[in-house]
Amino acid sequence: MNAEIITIGDELLRGEIVDSNKARIAERLLLHDLDTRHQVSVLDDPADMRDAFVRAAERSDFVLVSGGLGPTRDDLTTEVLAEAFGRKLELHEPSLAAIETFFARVGREMVEANRKQAYFPEGADVLENPIGTAPGFSIREGRATFFAMPGVPRELDRMMDEQVLPRVAARLAAEEEGGAARRVVRAQLLATFGLGESTLEEELRDLMRDGDVELGFRTAFPDNFLRPVARAATATEADAKIAEAVAAIRDRLGPVVYSREEGIGATESKDTMESVVGYLLAEAGKTVATAESCTGGLIAERFTDVPGSSQYFLGGVVSYSNEAKAAMLGVPEEMLETHGAVSEPVVRAMAEGVRDRFGSDFGIATSGISGPDGGTPDKPVGLVWIALASDAGTHADSFVFQVDRSRHRRLTAQVGLDWIRRSLIGAELVGPSLLRRGGGGSTPGAGGASSGAERAKAGAGPRARGTAGGER
Amino acid sequence: MNAEIITIGDELLRGEIVDSNKARIAERLLLHDLDTRHQVSVLDDPADMRDAFVRAAERSDFVLVSGGLGPTRDDLTTEVLAEAFGRKLELHEPSLAAIETFFARVGREMVEANRKQAYFPEGADVLENPIGTAPGFSIREGRATFFAMPGVPRELDRMMDEQVLPRVAARLAAEEEGGAARRVVRAQLLATFGLGESTLEEELRDLMRDGDVELGFRTAFPDNFLRPVARAATATEADAKIAEAVAAIRDRLGPVVYSREEGIGATESKDTMESVVGYLLAEAGKTVATAESCTGGLIAERFTDVPGSSQYFLGGVVSYSNEAKAAMLGVPEEMLETHGAVSEPVVRAMAEGVRDRFGSDFGIATSGISGPDGGTPDKPVGLVWIALASDAGTHADSFVFQVDRSRHRRLTAQVGLDWIRRSLIGAELVGPSLLRRGGGGSTPGAGGASSGAERAKAGAGPRARGTAGGER
Repeated sequence: MNAEIITIGDELLRGEIVDSNKARIAERLLLHDLDTRHQVSVLDDPADMRDAFVRAAERSDFVLVSGGLGPTRDDLTTEVLAEAFGRKLELHEPSLAAIETFFARVGREMVEANRKQAYFPEGADVLENPIGTAPGFSIREGRATFFAMPGVPRELDRMMDEQVLPRVAARLAAEEEGGAARRVVRAQLLATFGLGESTLEEELRDLMRDGDVELGFRTAFPDNFLRPVARAATATEADAKIAEAVAAIRDRLGPVVYSREEGIGATESKDTMESVVGYLLAEAGKTVATAESCTGGLIAERFTDVPGSSQYFLGGVVSYSNEAKAAMLGVPEEMLETHGAVSEPVVRAMAEGVRDRFGSDFGIATSGISGPDGGTPDKPVGLVWIALASDAGTHADSFVFQVDRSRHRRLTAQVGLDWIRRSLIGAELVGPSLLRRGGGGSTPGAGGASSGAERAKAGAGPRARGTAGGER
Repeated sequence: MNAEIITIGDELLRGEIVDSNKARIAERLLLHDLDTRHQVSVLDDPADMRDAFVRAAERSDFVLVSGGLGPTRDDLTTEVLAEAFGRKLELHEPSLAAIETFFARVGREMVEANRKQAYFPEGADVLENPIGTAPGFSIREGRATFFAMPGVPRELDRMMDEQVLPRVAARLAAEEEGGAARRVVRAQLLATFGLGESTLEEELRDLMRDGDVELGFRTAFPDNFLRPVARAATATEADAKIAEAVAAIRDRLGPVVYSREEGIGATESKDTMESVVGYLLAEAGKTVATAESCTGGLIAERFTDVPGSSQYFLGGVVSYSNEAKAAMLGVPEEMLETHGAVSEPVVRAMAEGVRDRFGSDFGIATSGISGPDGGTPDKPVGLVWIALASDAGTHADSFVFQVDRSRHRRLTAQVGLDWIRRSLIGAELVGPSLLRRGGGGSTPGAGGASSGAERAKAGAGPRARGTAGGER
């Protein structure tokens, strides 16, 4: 069996908005072991919509339609679906009552056009929309079960989860020899930082020989996500397979995996680097303060993005100017003059200064040249010094990240956060490794990087650089 | 004439990535007055790809294909397009040389699979790819001109702009009576902050009576973007129409429009709030420092995201704890005890303290309860105090933003930046107005908000709240 997704709306075909509904629908179907074979977008045009519906009814078992259920004249999904398959429109009294209740609750006036949203093709199975005015519906046409859903993402997601997926599962179970033929699918998402995608693939290749577990890779700079998907006859078996795969990956990659808990699905990860660091800090009863130059507040911003972070994040200084480094962090002015702001002594003094002034357990500091300008022959664009001060002493290293300004800042912040994490779990404080890339397609990852230590080993000066990461 | 976009890749149909290529292609075509009528995504499957190509050749004049040009076995676009239309594959020597040069330049080894990328269907017009290994190509089949392009966004964008759009324009001009029938299209993007979408529509309704100028709206929280699109017989006429529309909008909305320069197209704005504020600060020779509590470094991060910001951004303090507010900003401890951290006296002392310590012209401070926890009956979740200190004195106001934590922080940061902008252009320091919403679809905007001043007028306490903004 296969699925088709049809999204409707002029704004999609004009490129005014990026259509993320298709990805979220497809991902959810895949977790029911249902592959999406076609995705189509059409204008709010009855002829084009009709064509798309008729063609989908011929070639697909499940047709997920999003958009065109609103109250305006442009919202034609219900009418066109009814007309395409020779059905009349019928008033659904409970939906009319629900729409009236909705407007009363949010204190908005219900206009005549909203009544339209209570009409459905005859024989339709109405799908509740508890958080919006447009109910959805389902009709069966030959081999195809159509589901018409609103285009507003949060309404769509809820209707998929609560109304559509149970119906999809029921039909799959009913039609396939009592459900026995259909496999149970489980997926989990593991976030990693520090290795490029091609290196991860190499490291994990032999683990993925089991035909029942498929390993997906996804990059969201500067992280790489691993997504094992397991299929089995029973839920117990699928759960066991996925647990085994996750354990093997964790064993192989060690601290490169930073997720504490496995996120279900492909697009949602429960753990972010900052939430993991925050959890570990809270668990250890430790606190942190930040001294940021090139990252300009990004590390502090990420810490404080996590609810409850006031428990372990005391604050920070964005010392963009040399005067601020001296006045707010106590970096000696002669040190700034002798070594320059982007130097090992200065970044160490920043980390130690902020730790001292905020009275925190950890002090993390960054100073670098994110570009596009500001480089010199000795200190090229991309050079960054990072330091972590704690009661174990101060660790500092330099990197040359050959990526654009925004990525340079994000990558530097991620290394800073990762060092705190590594320190708390007793792992080595390393930076992202030099990205290795094969001759195949672009396999982006943590961006090209070489650390000061690596450069020293190679006998190269600070200008030695990795290649820039690709992009997808 | 119409266009069709076909994107190819299993990862799209599994929902692993959100396909933004379609929107960027469609937007660029629209600026050539070419409407996209169909968007289709298919698996890396020869039969499905062939079906899509053959159907597109029947119904579309321009077919923009993205993906499937890489070196792997899954990359089948070239082979399937050739086979579908009975063409042989031919080696294109200049492309082979270009691919060899590319690998030599980036210092990677060229594998045999990359040679495949130098073969094209006979009769193809090869499209250069200066930043990747996969050249594109164009073939004409009956009414349809196919353009096959890589799926990597930045390679695709560049090929569209440099190779594809000129060919599209040439065909359009050649086939339509010497080009006279085709209208010239101009679009511009204006960023606004402070009014909801429905309010903007009301304010501008009478300006949009001219049938040759269409006004589009787009929301990217917390901003709203206006996009007038003008069509005319000549470029001069279209430019004049758009200039007139932009002037009328600016005249009507005043400082609510924050773009300095108009961005071309729907998805790219040259000016961000932080770049505009930075430009105005640099122009005036003024400097700024930040004292952030609830925004946690977000304002500093946005300032420093702009290249060259060290000219006017001196630095800041993220004073998340009360101790930091006292030690780093000089907020009196008894003031913190008496009034609490989220209070007018404290936020004023923060703004004045940071201005004093950094020696800046402006000091901007935030202190609020972004949630989800931490509210009290007197100080509910959503309450925020913002202060701007300058040589004109210190302005402070409070708001209750009934949005989630992330939006609360983003909205607060935007008000802070906007106040600096308004101060520099001599406009009133106001916050986002209460969002007004009609009975139609969701019209999101700056989020529900009520300022302290508004609440005082209404005789309501600090718990008076607007409704939360919608989402699309």
